[in-house]
Amino acid sequence: MKTETTIQGLAASLNPARAARKIIGFVPTMGNLHEGHLNLVREARKLCDIVVVSIFVNPIQFGPNEDFDNYPRTLEQDQRLLADVGCDIVFAPTVEQMYGSKPRLTNISVSDITNDLCGLQRPGHFDGVAVVVTKLFNIVQPNYAFFGQKDYQQLAVIRQFVRDLNIPLEVIGVPITRAEDGLALSSRNGYLSAENRAAAPAIYKNLKAAEQALLSGDALPKVLEDMKSALTGAGFVVDYVEARTTELQKVEQFNEDLVLFVAAKLGATRLIDNLQVKYTAS
Amino acid sequence: MKTETTIQGLAASLNPARAARKIIGFVPTMGNLHEGHLNLVREARKLCDIVVVSIFVNPIQFGPNEDFDNYPRTLEQDQRLLADVGCDIVFAPTVEQMYGSKPRLTNISVSDITNDLCGLQRPGHFDGVAVVVTKLFNIVQPNYAFFGQKDYQQLAVIRQFVRDLNIPLEVIGVPITRAEDGLALSSRNGYLSAENRAAAPAIYKNLKAAEQALLSGDALPKVLEDMKSALTGAGFVVDYVEARTTELQKVEQFNEDLVLFVAAKLGATRLIDNLQVKYTAS
Repeated sequence: MKTETTIQGLAASLNPARAARKIIGFVPTMGNLHEGHLNLVREARKLCDIVVVSIFVNPIQFGPNEDFDNYPRTLEQDQRLLADVGCDIVFAPTVEQMYGSKPRLTNISVSDITNDLCGLQRPGHFDGVAVVVTKLFNIVQPNYAFFGQKDYQQLAVIRQFVRDLNIPLEVIGVPITRAEDGLALSSRNGYLSAENRAAAPAIYKNLKAAEQALLSGDALPKVLEDMKSALTGAGFVVDYVEARTTELQKVEQFNEDLVLFVAAKLGATRLIDNLQVKYTAS
Repeated sequence: MKTETTIQGLAASLNPARAARKIIGFVPTMGNLHEGHLNLVREARKLCDIVVVSIFVNPIQFGPNEDFDNYPRTLEQDQRLLADVGCDIVFAPTVEQMYGSKPRLTNISVSDITNDLCGLQRPGHFDGVAVVVTKLFNIVQPNYAFFGQKDYQQLAVIRQFVRDLNIPLEVIGVPITRAEDGLALSSRNGYLSAENRAAAPAIYKNLKAAEQALLSGDALPKVLEDMKSALTGAGFVVDYVEARTTELQKVEQFNEDLVLFVAAKLGATRLIDNLQVKYTAS
């Protein structure tokens, strides 16, 4: 496994593969990798000849009061984990390498679906994601790019601008990796106290209960309300409990496939999770 | 020369060239071609193995009161002209082919330099250009893309987002093609009455006079004021006479390379022109 820190170095590493028409898979990350990220790499490994993983903590997707400076940077540990799952090239550029010294004037925005859910409290966050992912796509030029369904809204935003801008690659969404007790893996789980860690699986348990309620005919608004009450009762401070179509459009009732979304705090730690619920006309 | 009207058809035409690592040159146009466009194709012909010209009247760069519906569409004539200058592939998609049936949610904006000069009176125009050019770049995936310096602001906007988004191609600016009497070629020249056509070369004459005045030490504000007066005296309704750096930043005096810009109306016809003036420290 090679690590490249410059765009030029990465191009030199990838050009022989490109010339030989190898299939290139790409997994963009901000590092601090856990089993969820590694499953993205394993998925890429299955489909592709060459697997590139980027590790870049992207300043422009952090708000002024967010934790850019303190975001965990664990490159050596990440490199060991990536080597073990068969990554070929780690791309770990500096901020200077990605954004240069001249001011960036270009922005990419995806309307409607970024001013919702997690975007409501993070203005500009998804613009920053769209810009950096587009840059990385243009730098790596992969055939496939892999993203976790854990950040479902991010995945939907990326699918949208890839389609709208005809970016020549296929986006693959990979199912959420969960702990034995159902908690969706996240770098943030490490911040939970033992007590909160024990309470956290209630999110997934309630998502599954909501799915059952919908499938047995309960009305969507009631199901969402019940889930909110249950989580509040279990000690969560609920940010949102919402349902959307798979393309993040608002939805009033359960008459097509939809996605249930939860964002809730336990102590200072904000957890997110989601569950896709299939609709079958009866 | 082939004409392709679908993205899939174009891909099928280009894939063998791509597999053989041929150099692909791309000239995006809205058709209604004149000698200025053909010089872009000739330039592409010199540098590239395969030359692709797109002809697409892009609805999203027209304002609500602009002439999208009446924009001249002259595909057969354009095809003959392009065959004569050695174009390999014409890409002439429908609006449906380019924008699909689902709503486009993604926008690309380039701040500052699009809210100036021609952008002042055409809000959203350069966003529409940025989106369609990015789409076309992703569809054609050229090594080189050719744009006329006549639309200098458009060229600067394209250079900016190509750099900001790491789009993997080189943008080539091609000098303005002029009639014998100096008038910059434009589809719009055909709308001029005989009398206005005779008056129109005053724009270029005044740009050259302004260059001389700057080189002989006259102050920039005075030179711009004089040019404005001269054009108004010659029967033009001046929209703007401005100077900017080559990257479109505002400039107060002549102490670096700059570009002089004119937009002015003769009758109902709005003409634009520009001239780059080299600075040499004395």
